[in-house]
Amino acid sequence: MAKPSVRDKIVDAALERFHTLGFSACSVQDIVDTAGVPKGSFYNYFKAKELLALEVLSIYGQDCNREILNDITLAPIARLRAHFEYMAAYYAEFGYEKGCLIGNLAAEMTDNTPLLRQAIKKALEKWTAAVTATLREGQADGSITTRLDAEKVARFLINSWEGAVVRMKIACCRQPLDDFFAVAFPLLSRSMAE
Amino acid sequence: MAKPSVRDKIVDAALERFHTLGFSACSVQDIVDTAGVPKGSFYNYFKAKELLALEVLSIYGQDCNREILNDITLAPIARLRAHFEYMAAYYAEFGYEKGCLIGNLAAEMTDNTPLLRQAIKKALEKWTAAVTATLREGQADGSITTRLDAEKVARFLINSWEGAVVRMKIACCRQPLDDFFAVAFPLLSRSMAE
Repeated sequence: MAKPSVRDKIVDAALERFHTLGFSACSVQDIVDTAGVPKGSFYNYFKAKELLALEVLSIYGQDCNREILNDITLAPIARLRAHFEYMAAYYAEFGYEKGCLIGNLAAEMTDNTPLLRQAIKKALEKWTAAVTATLREGQADGSITTRLDAEKVARFLINSWEGAVVRMKIACCRQPLDDFFAVAFPLLSRSMAE
Repeated sequence: MAKPSVRDKIVDAALERFHTLGFSACSVQDIVDTAGVPKGSFYNYFKAKELLALEVLSIYGQDCNREILNDITLAPIARLRAHFEYMAAYYAEFGYEKGCLIGNLAAEMTDNTPLLRQAIKKALEKWTAAVTATLREGQADGSITTRLDAEKVARFLINSWEGAVVRMKIACCRQPLDDFFAVAFPLLSRSMAE
């Protein structure tokens, strides 16, 4: 197997460091130290830390196993639950201390990082589209409430999840995620009582 | 009226700067420049930026007008709505770009700032207690669903709100807050149909 390139080492190190420290608290020096590459090499590949963050964000999104939302062997609600449980299991690996990279970066954004802010917006819209499609399938088969617009519910679910993950990061435990499952999921499937 | 003390100037500047830039991106130099005080004076009052953030967090919490949750001239659900709308109006003043100081700080917390992490945890618990009490009043008078534990719903509401506010900060518009009102509030008052 080919050795990772210097560029790959920088991207991998940045993913880990941004997730652990946050965007502002993580310096280029932190990244090159973790990657084990000379600082000068960083600027051969990335003109600025923000541009590296764009790439890291894209890789993190691919790691979130959204394919499970397309698994038609599962009912739509079960897919949504499995989707969020997949992320919960990922956070558990870090003792519930690190949160979600997308949410962490989002909370740090200012006018000083317009490209990254725009990329986070797009990443959240892509995620919303995937959750919306699953909700619509459940609305079509009668298992998910039709009282609310699917896209609105998708945005709400994702935002609520991100908020729960921020609280998880503070409490360092799973309780906020359990609150999310306990309160948000009955909302979706209550259509039978409508 | 007495002039603000150097200490007051530092605290006021820090509130504005932490809210605008985030905790990590805001240096002591940024704070003293905004306060218009010499850098040396900072360390006369605060041994570290983290200790100043504890005080800023406490002031921010007091500014959130939680008293409205105790206004018995309003029905419990109306109080909850007014409570969140009060914050929405505050965010509108900044073009929906700054988010919530508590949520922003929470998303940035690491093991490097244990005192601040603990203070945010306490601030969220205090807020949860206030919302829980209002929900319980609504459960007692039959206007709020009793299918779910009030404290669990309170945590969920606050976390969902914080997640909506992070999304608002990225989208720079009110839509995520509108999604919160549109989806979370029917959940609370649906008890009549149960």
